[in-house]
Amino acid sequence: MTKKEFEGYLYIEGGVCAAQGFVANGLHAGFHSDKNKNDLGMVYSETPCHTAAVYTQNKAKAAPVLVTQENLKASGGIARAVLANSKNANAGNRNGKETAIAACELAAQELGIPREQVIVASTGVIGEPLPLQPFQDHMQELVSGLSREGNSKAVNAIMTTDTVPKEAAVEFLLEGKICRLGGMAKGSGMIHPNMATTLNFITTDAAVSTEMLQRALKDVVKVTYNCLSIDGDTSTNDMVAVLANGLAGNQEIREEGEAYSCLKQALYIVMMNMTRMLAADGEGATKLLECCCEGAPDQDTAIIVAKSVIRSPLFKCAMFGEDANWGRILCAIGYADAEFSIDQMDVELSSLAGTVPVCRDGAGIPFSEELAAKVLAEEEINIHINLHQGEGKATAWGCDLTYDYVKINGDYRS
Amino acid sequence: MTKKEFEGYLYIEGGVCAAQGFVANGLHAGFHSDKNKNDLGMVYSETPCHTAAVYTQNKAKAAPVLVTQENLKASGGIARAVLANSKNANAGNRNGKETAIAACELAAQELGIPREQVIVASTGVIGEPLPLQPFQDHMQELVSGLSREGNSKAVNAIMTTDTVPKEAAVEFLLEGKICRLGGMAKGSGMIHPNMATTLNFITTDAAVSTEMLQRALKDVVKVTYNCLSIDGDTSTNDMVAVLANGLAGNQEIREEGEAYSCLKQALYIVMMNMTRMLAADGEGATKLLECCCEGAPDQDTAIIVAKSVIRSPLFKCAMFGEDANWGRILCAIGYADAEFSIDQMDVELSSLAGTVPVCRDGAGIPFSEELAAKVLAEEEINIHINLHQGEGKATAWGCDLTYDYVKINGDYRS
Repeated sequence: MTKKEFEGYLYIEGGVCAAQGFVANGLHAGFHSDKNKNDLGMVYSETPCHTAAVYTQNKAKAAPVLVTQENLKASGGIARAVLANSKNANAGNRNGKETAIAACELAAQELGIPREQVIVASTGVIGEPLPLQPFQDHMQELVSGLSREGNSKAVNAIMTTDTVPKEAAVEFLLEGKICRLGGMAKGSGMIHPNMATTLNFITTDAAVSTEMLQRALKDVVKVTYNCLSIDGDTSTNDMVAVLANGLAGNQEIREEGEAYSCLKQALYIVMMNMTRMLAADGEGATKLLECCCEGAPDQDTAIIVAKSVIRSPLFKCAMFGEDANWGRILCAIGYADAEFSIDQMDVELSSLAGTVPVCRDGAGIPFSEELAAKVLAEEEINIHINLHQGEGKATAWGCDLTYDYVKINGDYRS
Repeated sequence: MTKKEFEGYLYIEGGVCAAQGFVANGLHAGFHSDKNKNDLGMVYSETPCHTAAVYTQNKAKAAPVLVTQENLKASGGIARAVLANSKNANAGNRNGKETAIAACELAAQELGIPREQVIVASTGVIGEPLPLQPFQDHMQELVSGLSREGNSKAVNAIMTTDTVPKEAAVEFLLEGKICRLGGMAKGSGMIHPNMATTLNFITTDAAVSTEMLQRALKDVVKVTYNCLSIDGDTSTNDMVAVLANGLAGNQEIREEGEAYSCLKQALYIVMMNMTRMLAADGEGATKLLECCCEGAPDQDTAIIVAKSVIRSPLFKCAMFGEDANWGRILCAIGYADAEFSIDQMDVELSSLAGTVPVCRDGAGIPFSEELAAKVLAEEEINIHINLHQGEGKATAWGCDLTYDYVKINGDYRS
């Protein structure tokens, strides 16, 4: 995947452990039948963190989502640890909250912190009871193994149908202090964020108030994760949490201004990159699709148009087939639920192999099928739409719809 | 496909020619490269018809949709003919309206009727110019071949990726007069009605005012075609038109009452059956899925919930894999965009092979995987949801998501 460069920000390694004071671990606790698969992960901060979070808007919220919301409310937005398991979503069952609370309690006791400072998350099959035993049996091992190099183990523990781990981190300066912000994400199917998506944990050593961190997260989620669609399904378990421990030593950010913008940009870079990784690793995906809509009446309209294209199953199939069936883009733009006109619209398809204009002033134009085939043979396809009506601009990310998506989801539980 | 019986209504043959005074024809005019494929069809009434129609709400409305709207406005809701081609949608191109108007003119001249009494429709690839030549070359042959037995040729002419023709007709009594109402439909992909869907032409010899016919159509579309989703894509070309020529001799229906209810029920039976046919023949489908939601706060909520389940790609894949992954039903209900509670919800899966309750009071319950496998091996699967909150009830129809859907749509244009 290509990585876009941003001036003043340096991509670094380390993911969720890139920032000072954060350690992590992951291991096989027994939720998964495959003993080689990590299924329990933890992230821990040496010091308490201001914490922001956004959650799924699905009515059927998983128990860990509800418990995390309650914990952060009780702790006044302070957290020190993230505990996450895969294979079982702890959703749509009868004793989910009790289990999630008990798991937090086990982690808190082992770490010596208040239970309310634990963020708990689950991902996997919906509708089955989550056993507590694996937490009991492995909490000591999980905590004693926490280290600065544990980010890989932790990200592996939250993977389900993911084929690659998703991590990103950047280094930047705040008032002359070196700051780092990095994260890990999981997600491959059941992804159509409506607020947050998938499981995403981000850490930073920048000092920032909970309120300003929440504001930055809300703004950035809107133009990153919420512009991602793999399959139109909004999960019961989605969560993005950002933990800021302040160890970088900058003056705490408490209002908008240069420092806030700088931190928000770091958050954007990391979340945008993880969004692209999630899209590229969509279940069964062979191509990353990036749809940029500009010239919309406003940003919200641009988002709706770009997402409508990215979500269309017919368009996704055409991209898998490398067929420049641009009529499906027109169709998907046409049913986007917003007020705008398509009469002046231009559409182009592009990739590393070149650019093919397919529509001018709202109507199809002749194009070279040969060039189109070359453009669509690439792994990253850009769909550029200009409505020529205003300043609204947005990008949405997705992937093609393939045989493997059907295969993976035809028998997910086993 | 099983056909539900309704007292007082008899299923009959004849489709769009079942009602008195209607003739039809279809032939290969040259839009399609396969000479054995009919691609131009016509339905004609001996006498002028009161006509009701609903259209796609896609902003990128195809030219024939716009021209038909204008025609029916100019004629005061009177039509005598339907002219439809497949292979080319006459949408997203530059001279689409001129071509559609010219095609109407050719048909009108040959039939000796005003141009405004022609309903014109197209289906196929979006974004290419529609040639007029095939209309010019074949209009005489099309009109001279109109017959009471022409319904099969006409329905074949509007098929695209359809694997079977869709026709339905019923006979019933209005004030002692024998009435008939029948129709034809096409559609297999790009189906997620938002108003009408696909191409659907319905004829009846019942006498009814245009206003009351439109009212009945609007109500029935809401609970039939608009509750159908193959892939979430709302086409640019969708249209449902009902032509009533009054030859049955009943007193013209001009207000609500017993006769209106009786006619509306006939319309419901025919459209509901065609909706089921469209769902069962969804692109690549191996199973018809029928989701019934009851106990909702109101009918609109029930529709939203049922459609949300039917639309979920993950659930559709699970049904293809015959995997009782009911958590995906819970997930899809949870993100349905309406106000309701899931705490009391019951969910059952059923088919000719039996019934498996999977959820009681909002939580999963143990069930026999063996029985579930038998139930899901059938070709018609019913998902029954009871929210236990009110009297709202609705049914939505769809199909599974299969390898063949991806295959068909990976290279549709060629």
